[in-house]
Amino acid sequence: MNFELQYNDTKSNARAGLITTDHGVIETPIFMPVGTQGTVKGVHMTELKEDVNAQIILGNTYHLYLRPGIHILEQAGGLHKFNSWDRPILTDSGGFQVFSLSDNRKLHEEGAEFRSHIDGSRHMFSPEKVMDIQRSIGADIIMAFDECCPGDANYEYARKSLELTERWLNRCFERFNSTDPKYGYSQCLFPIVQGCVYTDLRRRAAENIAQKGADGNAIGGLAVGEPTEKMYEMIEVVNEILPKDKPRYLMGVGTPVNILEAIERGVDMFDCIMPTRNGRNGQIFTRFGTLNMRNKKWENDFSPIDPDANSYVDTLYSRAYLHHLIKVNELLGLQIASIHNLAFYIWLVKEARKHIISGDFTTWKSGMVRQLSNRL
Amino acid sequence: MNFELQYNDTKSNARAGLITTDHGVIETPIFMPVGTQGTVKGVHMTELKEDVNAQIILGNTYHLYLRPGIHILEQAGGLHKFNSWDRPILTDSGGFQVFSLSDNRKLHEEGAEFRSHIDGSRHMFSPEKVMDIQRSIGADIIMAFDECCPGDANYEYARKSLELTERWLNRCFERFNSTDPKYGYSQCLFPIVQGCVYTDLRRRAAENIAQKGADGNAIGGLAVGEPTEKMYEMIEVVNEILPKDKPRYLMGVGTPVNILEAIERGVDMFDCIMPTRNGRNGQIFTRFGTLNMRNKKWENDFSPIDPDANSYVDTLYSRAYLHHLIKVNELLGLQIASIHNLAFYIWLVKEARKHIISGDFTTWKSGMVRQLSNRL
Repeated sequence: MNFELQYNDTKSNARAGLITTDHGVIETPIFMPVGTQGTVKGVHMTELKEDVNAQIILGNTYHLYLRPGIHILEQAGGLHKFNSWDRPILTDSGGFQVFSLSDNRKLHEEGAEFRSHIDGSRHMFSPEKVMDIQRSIGADIIMAFDECCPGDANYEYARKSLELTERWLNRCFERFNSTDPKYGYSQCLFPIVQGCVYTDLRRRAAENIAQKGADGNAIGGLAVGEPTEKMYEMIEVVNEILPKDKPRYLMGVGTPVNILEAIERGVDMFDCIMPTRNGRNGQIFTRFGTLNMRNKKWENDFSPIDPDANSYVDTLYSRAYLHHLIKVNELLGLQIASIHNLAFYIWLVKEARKHIISGDFTTWKSGMVRQLSNRL
Repeated sequence: MNFELQYNDTKSNARAGLITTDHGVIETPIFMPVGTQGTVKGVHMTELKEDVNAQIILGNTYHLYLRPGIHILEQAGGLHKFNSWDRPILTDSGGFQVFSLSDNRKLHEEGAEFRSHIDGSRHMFSPEKVMDIQRSIGADIIMAFDECCPGDANYEYARKSLELTERWLNRCFERFNSTDPKYGYSQCLFPIVQGCVYTDLRRRAAENIAQKGADGNAIGGLAVGEPTEKMYEMIEVVNEILPKDKPRYLMGVGTPVNILEAIERGVDMFDCIMPTRNGRNGQIFTRFGTLNMRNKKWENDFSPIDPDANSYVDTLYSRAYLHHLIKVNELLGLQIASIHNLAFYIWLVKEARKHIISGDFTTWKSGMVRQLSNRL
């Protein structure tokens, strides 16, 4: 993987760059649709490419390890072959999912023992095992295995958690560096800055990670319950330290406004289930604000879903029709909302990139943040 | 609407024809995907056109009357405008749905009183009202309101039911003929032959309907619990009497084999929820038989879903991937299976048409019936 930093905004820390992987290039800032179980819910691979314009998607180690299972993915020749997505893939390490199974997992120095949410079977994730699994999944970008500390953890808990995460990170790198990719294309490992909402922990974590010389670096453990302003503050603290010549990935964030604020603070990569999950619940994001499609006011609005038309669904279908589909719980409603929202998110980061390049990012961003907060 | 009978098979009663409506032409024999609530479940309108190659789809009067409601469809300018499907639409009259609400409906000479399955609200469908509703929905082909008699009804029940259906049919025609289409294109009314499994009732019903001079005629009340051979026998009885120069529509049927048998007996039009509903349950129809995608045997079969490739999903995705999606209950699994099965059904009737035209329909059909019965 290679990262070329192409433009630095002069009035903020926003940047535009180009990531090159063996499965193609990614223009940053970028939003990555989440394909937890090897599929972005409700969206065909062809639609992801042609209608959503996704340049990279996510997979999830925890879910893919359980189903279809690593033996199947290895036989397939990796996830790209299995799900027919031939552009870049990033896999989350499963740390977040394992730690979400609060009653069903135990944490040791060695790793995390957990029970499957599907059949209760026992499993163990160690840093080494998670590296091996991600080698087998075959993502272009793989993530370190860490403890994702709750947003409201006290300092002592957060410090101990970070220390464990740092010891695990060393083991991740050791395993990663002593193993080869399985399918003939290269993979890279991103470490994850933890440290909860404590400035000194975040700084220490970022400094530790900065000297690892990784191909890219992630910021984790944010948007997990802490105040939004705290999140922005932590991003600033961390991005002062993380190398400027490597991409920075803010994990699991967020609303369109969160994304613009983070871009302004020097983040390059994003993923979030919000566009698909909220879409399935009837929330539609547009440049002029959000629409709750369940609202009766749309029942006879026969205008296009979004006149901006970032994807064909926006003008093919009307708001009244989408309202009907969502209200009667039809699959097509979920499909339309997912395509629309993903295409909107990707339009938004592409637009941010354009304005970074043209030099008016901060002005554009202020206007957008105001608009995006509207409820239509 | 106009029907041109283009070819008669010399060795059977199979026919090939051309239906012309104001929304385009339909080559028969044809299979019509079911869009109960104004959407074919899990399939975009673009996919229906380009990937499934649907020439006409169904809507359901009962469901559309309840949601979104006729006032919305009228404001939209009809169902075509509402759901963006600009090819022909046929609406089922809702008779079948109302009579399925066994505990929640009462039958009178005037019509059927029923309670909504959604909110328990009271409604009344009379032949006149159902004609008016279908005028408002704006389907190209609308269906008579009838009582759909259970497949195991005794003779006395079936006879009385048929008599009511015949009186209602007169009222349907009266109302239909005294009203105009609402949206500037023409609509036509198909009467429905009932009579359960009783030859003399079916014959009487067909004779009554034959002299109505309708643009097309339907056979209803089959595949509702009676033996399959009985169904074929009833089709033969009825098709001896129904006009040869008008299309014949067998309602709600059926498996691929049922369809070929009915084509051989002179049926031109079909609809069925089987390709979409069974698809959502993991059943895939192919030329070589059916596949149960839940079966573990597919978990590492990385070959295309169907090498015949009647639609792009067949070769883009593998059996192993579809198995995974269906097993983990992912939306994309339902979407792929629905597109595949619909494209297969439409390929099948198109192929039947080709063989009717080329004169080897019966030979081809015998081979297909054997293959289609396989379980792969």
